[in-house]
Amino acid sequence: MTTSSRREALRGLLRTAGLDGLLVTDPVNVRYLTGFSGSNGAVLVGTDGPDLFGTDGRYTARAAVEVPDLEPVIERATVFALASRARGLGVGRLGFESDAVTVEAHAALAAMLDEQGIELVRAPGLVAQLRVVKDETEIAHLRRACGIADAALHAIVADGGLRPGRTEREIALDLEFRMRGLGADGPSFDSIVAAGAHSAIPHHAPTDTPVAAGDLLKLDFGALVAGYHSDMTRTLVVGRAADWQRELYALVHEAQAAGCAAVGAGVATKDVDAASRDVITAAGRGPEFVHGLGHGVGLVIHEAPALSAASRDVLEEGMVVTVEPGVYLPDRGGVRIEDTLVVEGETLTGFPKELLEL
Amino acid sequence: MTTSSRREALRGLLRTAGLDGLLVTDPVNVRYLTGFSGSNGAVLVGTDGPDLFGTDGRYTARAAVEVPDLEPVIERATVFALASRARGLGVGRLGFESDAVTVEAHAALAAMLDEQGIELVRAPGLVAQLRVVKDETEIAHLRRACGIADAALHAIVADGGLRPGRTEREIALDLEFRMRGLGADGPSFDSIVAAGAHSAIPHHAPTDTPVAAGDLLKLDFGALVAGYHSDMTRTLVVGRAADWQRELYALVHEAQAAGCAAVGAGVATKDVDAASRDVITAAGRGPEFVHGLGHGVGLVIHEAPALSAASRDVLEEGMVVTVEPGVYLPDRGGVRIEDTLVVEGETLTGFPKELLEL
Repeated sequence: MTTSSRREALRGLLRTAGLDGLLVTDPVNVRYLTGFSGSNGAVLVGTDGPDLFGTDGRYTARAAVEVPDLEPVIERATVFALASRARGLGVGRLGFESDAVTVEAHAALAAMLDEQGIELVRAPGLVAQLRVVKDETEIAHLRRACGIADAALHAIVADGGLRPGRTEREIALDLEFRMRGLGADGPSFDSIVAAGAHSAIPHHAPTDTPVAAGDLLKLDFGALVAGYHSDMTRTLVVGRAADWQRELYALVHEAQAAGCAAVGAGVATKDVDAASRDVITAAGRGPEFVHGLGHGVGLVIHEAPALSAASRDVLEEGMVVTVEPGVYLPDRGGVRIEDTLVVEGETLTGFPKELLEL
Repeated sequence: MTTSSRREALRGLLRTAGLDGLLVTDPVNVRYLTGFSGSNGAVLVGTDGPDLFGTDGRYTARAAVEVPDLEPVIERATVFALASRARGLGVGRLGFESDAVTVEAHAALAAMLDEQGIELVRAPGLVAQLRVVKDETEIAHLRRACGIADAALHAIVADGGLRPGRTEREIALDLEFRMRGLGADGPSFDSIVAAGAHSAIPHHAPTDTPVAAGDLLKLDFGALVAGYHSDMTRTLVVGRAADWQRELYALVHEAQAAGCAAVGAGVATKDVDAASRDVITAAGRGPEFVHGLGHGVGLVIHEAPALSAASRDVLEEGMVVTVEPGVYLPDRGGVRIEDTLVVEGETLTGFPKELLEL
């Protein structure tokens, strides 16, 4: 799908909302609607066209490459420059992204537009609504990002990079370096590398602790490609697994498979969460599965829909979600297994899920 | 300076503003006032104490380590949890960071506090006002970050890592990898590596273009240490410099020295900008110096004060600023030289500035 057809889809939502246009300033939404990746950009999408794109002088060259179909307005005060042109486009009711614009920025903008007789209207979440179902271009980027993370993990295992004595920080750096070498723009979030008892901390930041023989080793990481985030967790054992580790792994493995099997168009996300959680609860480990089952992923690492007991979302074909149950035994160790899936499509993360003993 | 004495300094500003407390939600300001580095944290600073710190269950362990002096409120809806305790602390007028809080978040918060008879007051920029002058702890982090960037550049030069045939992307990755190996948490911003004609683009994103003999090579990069950002630019020649490159370099080098010499307590930042810019203008290159001279740097890569013609800031002892004039000749090449300096203190970036011919 082209950025121009995404803007066309947005016009449909603007008509329904009774707006003459939307001033898009959230950088992620600007990228989605125009392709622009710089830190300062905005786009005014007119309900009956045309669209105005703006950035500042630092990005003139980049805008020409990334946004070839829109003539850029080059102004330091980019958002004001676009807003001041709204009147000329016949805009009376102008939506703004009230879930991204600060109170101060809104006050300044409202004061300016008020003088021109333009009404600034709160319009949260409109572009996010479009972004929740991924188009083929987006899925291709996510496929590449997930493939890079897979390849990096295969390579580090093959090279003995997860051996005892290496620290969590060294392993995180090694994984990130390999992903960059394979073409990623960077890691898609702060890598989690958690050895031994640290694996029981869901969001553990890597330390200088060395991996020891017999440790559970939890790796939660991903690659960034063209703004799209991959997300995968694997937990393995450095050496031979003890019985308790093998049992814990088998339980989470089964729960993860149940979650993946439940994913489908028309299914409530809370039911997907339940399908996986029930396996863990039945084994008496419910209280040790302390987070939701998963989340949407795309231009943002955590985005809609949420896969959790409290969520009221329903899956649609083309959504991309993670399924990542975990059980954490404080001071002993934890296991999490996570895949990224296209609803009614492929599983994007491919590294094997059988228990790996290094 | 401890985080507790920073909160004490904030109380002085709150009294002046007639507030009973400030609800701090900008993650950078939360880190400054508490030491907490997680993605979800908030602090309510009471004008007459006490202070409340909150985060969610993912960060319980991290909060205990990073914020040992405040008992955390652990709640998923962290900001609401703190705000709902304001009444009990005798807060009537509660400031909020209106330059960081979105319109939607403010509306939800205001609705809740209104029921409790608490007035929510716009209070932008208060913590930023404190952050502009760095204390010794902060300067120590910046010194370490700048030292790591220096060491990485020395090492890549010594290892022949800037040789012809390597691509801009490879060099960026190599620099970032070396900084991580030296103890950085990551790069402090997207590294700029610009070879040949690309050096004429002020903010160039690295490509697969290989460096060629005779190229100007512009490197603008930094290390992240404990949340603090280093920032340095060096431009060198791969091979022997042509006369025009040598002249361009000498001009920017002179302008950069003039800018550094002008930095001092009590000096208007626009005068520092002028001291450097005048050198370039006198050489007839004024129109090719297309950006401001520099900026403050700390927990954010670009922060107050601005060093530019339009700025009305005045330097104070302990501010940390960059001085980075550049001259860009489209389609030929550009030179930028950038240091980071403590006002009335040391220059934190140490890599030599004599023209380096590799």
